[in-house]
Amino acid sequence: MSVKILGGITAPKGFKASGVHCGIRKNKNKLDLALLVSDVPCATAAVYTQNKVQGAPILVTKTHIADGYSQAMLCNSGNANTCNPNGVELAKTCCELAAQATGLKPNDFVIASTGVIGMPLPIEPFVTGIPLAVDMLSNKGGNFAAEAIMTTDTRRKDFALEFKLGGVLCRMGVMTKGSGMINPNMATMLTFITTDVAISPQMLDQALKAEVKETLNQICVDGDTSTNDMAVVMANGLAGNPYIAENNADYATFCTILHKICVWASREIAGDGEGATKLLQCSVHHAPSKAVALSVAKSIISSDLFKSAMFGEDANWGRALCAIGYAEGDFSIKNVSLTLKSEKGEVLVCQNAMYHPYSEEFASEILSEREIEILVDMHDGDYYAQAWGCDLTYEYVKINGDYRS
Amino acid sequence: MSVKILGGITAPKGFKASGVHCGIRKNKNKLDLALLVSDVPCATAAVYTQNKVQGAPILVTKTHIADGYSQAMLCNSGNANTCNPNGVELAKTCCELAAQATGLKPNDFVIASTGVIGMPLPIEPFVTGIPLAVDMLSNKGGNFAAEAIMTTDTRRKDFALEFKLGGVLCRMGVMTKGSGMINPNMATMLTFITTDVAISPQMLDQALKAEVKETLNQICVDGDTSTNDMAVVMANGLAGNPYIAENNADYATFCTILHKICVWASREIAGDGEGATKLLQCSVHHAPSKAVALSVAKSIISSDLFKSAMFGEDANWGRALCAIGYAEGDFSIKNVSLTLKSEKGEVLVCQNAMYHPYSEEFASEILSEREIEILVDMHDGDYYAQAWGCDLTYEYVKINGDYRS
Repeated sequence: MSVKILGGITAPKGFKASGVHCGIRKNKNKLDLALLVSDVPCATAAVYTQNKVQGAPILVTKTHIADGYSQAMLCNSGNANTCNPNGVELAKTCCELAAQATGLKPNDFVIASTGVIGMPLPIEPFVTGIPLAVDMLSNKGGNFAAEAIMTTDTRRKDFALEFKLGGVLCRMGVMTKGSGMINPNMATMLTFITTDVAISPQMLDQALKAEVKETLNQICVDGDTSTNDMAVVMANGLAGNPYIAENNADYATFCTILHKICVWASREIAGDGEGATKLLQCSVHHAPSKAVALSVAKSIISSDLFKSAMFGEDANWGRALCAIGYAEGDFSIKNVSLTLKSEKGEVLVCQNAMYHPYSEEFASEILSEREIEILVDMHDGDYYAQAWGCDLTYEYVKINGDYRS
Repeated sequence: MSVKILGGITAPKGFKASGVHCGIRKNKNKLDLALLVSDVPCATAAVYTQNKVQGAPILVTKTHIADGYSQAMLCNSGNANTCNPNGVELAKTCCELAAQATGLKPNDFVIASTGVIGMPLPIEPFVTGIPLAVDMLSNKGGNFAAEAIMTTDTRRKDFALEFKLGGVLCRMGVMTKGSGMINPNMATMLTFITTDVAISPQMLDQALKAEVKETLNQICVDGDTSTNDMAVVMANGLAGNPYIAENNADYATFCTILHKICVWASREIAGDGEGATKLLQCSVHHAPSKAVALSVAKSIISSDLFKSAMFGEDANWGRALCAIGYAEGDFSIKNVSLTLKSEKGEVLVCQNAMYHPYSEEFASEILSEREIEILVDMHDGDYYAQAWGCDLTYEYVKINGDYRS
């Protein structure tokens, strides 16, 4: 139903992007400014962090896409432009500079920043960097943009799918980044999704808001909800599919593709969490409600103790059960079973919330893999949810003990 | 008004205690069974974990002190007796064995366990260990009992105060333990408080429940709410003070002493958190409500990112502000100021939720101390609260990557 294609956010028709080094980051080998421009206006939906401290770019982006449309996106790494006295002014000036260089209007721009909080951010890098980024715009530039939004990420995170709507070939691309301060709440880290699907802003907003609850909000690296989380979808309609303006079969297909894109982004962010050596995927089956399924899955992959045990490849399942026990919601734990699974096989370690005999050796072998799945069966309903996290390692502490130097 | 004295939980009149090695822990040099007996019945109040998974001893203790009284306490380390199919039966058998050996009734006993979750726990160590512990009972035995309840704690945690009520000399002692799976919720880790004050069970219960909200519930080592948290106060009345049965001046004094004891315990647990090199104390001033003050203080000392920065002695205050921003409650962040303080001095790093110029060198010097205070002024009301935590270190990951072996 969908096929993976190359190109990331520039895979959909009519999107150009670039990534340049403008000098916000000291290391000249690291790109730090990403630009994305669509040939035509895009229906645009976004979700933002629920943190009371919000990055200045979020405040500016909210007003710019209040009408449901945008046409371009500018994002820097190396500085979050948060808690800076002149942050909003600076973000607005950046949009003006980008408008001048592209011939668009300032409020056509989504703007975002990621990096250290509360460090002064000068305008100079943008003055030289924005025209350079405009010069470099290309329909093959998605990869460079994805590289320019990285902070402690160890790899570029972009991806694209091709699919059909009403018989018409459409595309959806995404770039995203982690990798610390990851505990999205009704929003997510920086995730930018492009598509050439023709869809109304209202339907796009509905699709994104439903989707992030089940994927991007279900990631946790360290329990810290960032001040700059943002997920944006820009749909320029250039695929020429029948315009989606109601809850029909094409909308359902669109949501399925958006789900695949967001699951991919969630797994990428979690698996490349700061210091991570393992991706943890928790799948909760037969929960009494969707909310409980989501809460239980997230609680397990958020537990520092369980994450440390996974780093040590120790099947200390009691910590997972403990994390279920303090998950939010009204539910019974008495029928819960736990299975640990990887490419090496699977092992049932807990049944009816009690110890179930198993081979520690085999369990350790299962946990030696890079991707670990924790299967929870609550035997108490029909709801299902997943969450994604990573192990807690020495490297996480090292990265964050000395992030700014 | 109160003076520190020796003896821990056996400092108050009429309490005897012991700590022995009974074989639950493999290392014969580690004590693993604590016993406490009062000469006369004690008004008893307790709070327990809110985790849906609860240790078997908690279920048994709840029924035993339902009448407001107990006379003794038995606690093992090395195994939490949680998620064991025969856990409740085993806890009851332990109380019966202890009753036989002491001449008390099984339901005179508070029982507690701490250690690994979901590992089978045999009765044999108790069969030999309980009579041994009874033989060793002494009014100087508080220190041994405090040693026997340790798990990954690096030091014994007991303390006592002497004070006057109605002109009569009284005493209060405490023993407590950490040091991982620490994020108490309406309860706490294992904390046992003894006193010879004469007080009704109702007033004792009221005092304890009010107190834990401001101290023991305000600790966080790793965000994991344990399955076995319990705080108990046993008051045997042998001091001979005027019986406290109403909210009078003596009750207020009693609450002040209980607060000192619980602050001490909170600082001890946090400062000896798994892998900790620093005690973090966050004090929130001028908050719009008590709930917001508590929530903001707890949020900062719970942030993995901030804890890692403290380990690295890096004044990355933006992470503290970020943690305030995602704290629960309805409040404004716009007037928030942050000061970092230690014996080396103090430095204002953030004013009106924005960057405030400061010397990074001096800030690092302040953070080089073992005890760090984070002062938050919300400039938005009259409420105050504190919370206690520790830094996040390589050692935490090491301890928990391989806890069971």
